[in-house]
Amino acid sequence: MQNAWRKLIKSLHQKKYRYEEKMFFVEGAKSVAEALQSDFEIAALFGTEKFFQEYNSAFSNSNFYTETVKRADLEQVGTFQTNEYALAVLKMPEKQVLLQPDQWFLALADIADPGNLGTIIRLADWYGIQQIICSSQTTDWYSPKTLNASMGSFLRVKPYYTDLQDFIPKTGLKTYGAVLGGTNLHEIRKFEKKGILLMGNEAKGIPALLLPLLHSQISIPAFGQAESLNVAIATAICLDHLRQKMT
Amino acid sequence: MQNAWRKLIKSLHQKKYRYEEKMFFVEGAKSVAEALQSDFEIAALFGTEKFFQEYNSAFSNSNFYTETVKRADLEQVGTFQTNEYALAVLKMPEKQVLLQPDQWFLALADIADPGNLGTIIRLADWYGIQQIICSSQTTDWYSPKTLNASMGSFLRVKPYYTDLQDFIPKTGLKTYGAVLGGTNLHEIRKFEKKGILLMGNEAKGIPALLLPLLHSQISIPAFGQAESLNVAIATAICLDHLRQKMT
Repeated sequence: MQNAWRKLIKSLHQKKYRYEEKMFFVEGAKSVAEALQSDFEIAALFGTEKFFQEYNSAFSNSNFYTETVKRADLEQVGTFQTNEYALAVLKMPEKQVLLQPDQWFLALADIADPGNLGTIIRLADWYGIQQIICSSQTTDWYSPKTLNASMGSFLRVKPYYTDLQDFIPKTGLKTYGAVLGGTNLHEIRKFEKKGILLMGNEAKGIPALLLPLLHSQISIPAFGQAESLNVAIATAICLDHLRQKMT
Repeated sequence: MQNAWRKLIKSLHQKKYRYEEKMFFVEGAKSVAEALQSDFEIAALFGTEKFFQEYNSAFSNSNFYTETVKRADLEQVGTFQTNEYALAVLKMPEKQVLLQPDQWFLALADIADPGNLGTIIRLADWYGIQQIICSSQTTDWYSPKTLNASMGSFLRVKPYYTDLQDFIPKTGLKTYGAVLGGTNLHEIRKFEKKGILLMGNEAKGIPALLLPLLHSQISIPAFGQAESLNVAIATAICLDHLRQKMT
């Protein structure tokens, strides 16, 4: 692997350099192949011979740097230990675009764990949520751990990092927040066609400053003794109810 | 930390030694304190001075080995890197006890990831499932990663490892399996008060040999483009519907 790229990719493990370079990287043959067919701009593509044989059709008209490398090269610069044979360097979108507020948004207040964020991106994609509004303190969308956990869904779901306290009231959307001790989600009969579902930090929940902005505080009923649910699990259950009861 | 215990705990990271010694360990002040008040038999307790000050009441009549150690000792023998200050060595239950089949069981066919198993144990506890039937190939219940992910719920939910192909028909319980392309879970109107919910392996789903044993194949409807959901997420959504629609 060319040394300049090797150094660049290694630097992109760190958030600071991702934003300096305005680039990030995607690993894994399937995600890389999907990225090549997405609207993301590609800076460089690295794959093993096997990758280029299998996925030849995906990049026949490439106008970016391409290099055939050994699997050991990919293991050295990426985060995967084994069994993957492609890596693409992508350019970050120039600016954040906010979608029309005629739909449901997911909003995240200070989600800290990259794996949780990635899982939530995948969930949003499953339930047809097109944009996730992230508080400025939410963990970085473009970290390798987040992107890996999203299983390619980051190619379809768009982030919008902003100050939620400022953002939520401006949308005029009805905002539901998942809390402990709120209205039983099972007893909510219907949801409108648009709104915001707000999920809070893994340990601290929704920040106190945001609670007054909620139109409704909702909770997943417990039937046993566990004290809490993981935030990605809770997001899944809320989104499932949303979609089922949307009229 | 006494050297014999140090060696023992380090060996318990491996499944082989857990079953040879019939012991496993639990980390973290909260889980350890809960373990001390559970029906599990304790072999040894290690905590920092801080732990023994804070949780004094939990083990006033202890008849097991107890040692005050440094945090660095715990970090060296356990899996946590930081911020934890207790570890208990527990004895494995002598034998598996199967609960009465007048309730819902969760059954897992070859779940491979310890984090997923732990998250599913926590979920079962939230939704009041008291026992999880695990195929023999399912990852080990007593591994540190599984126990940590369960957040103490392994103290309440009981495992039963067995051959599912043999087990399921014997129960006489109606068995639902989560698959791709089955009956839409949102359209199922009610569930009985007892049954089995079967979830399959992360990559391969439910093994083909078990499919003929299902009374109903169910699926979580997708509204977007993600190809699949993580197995713990899917389990959560299925259990939520079960509890909501049980009559």
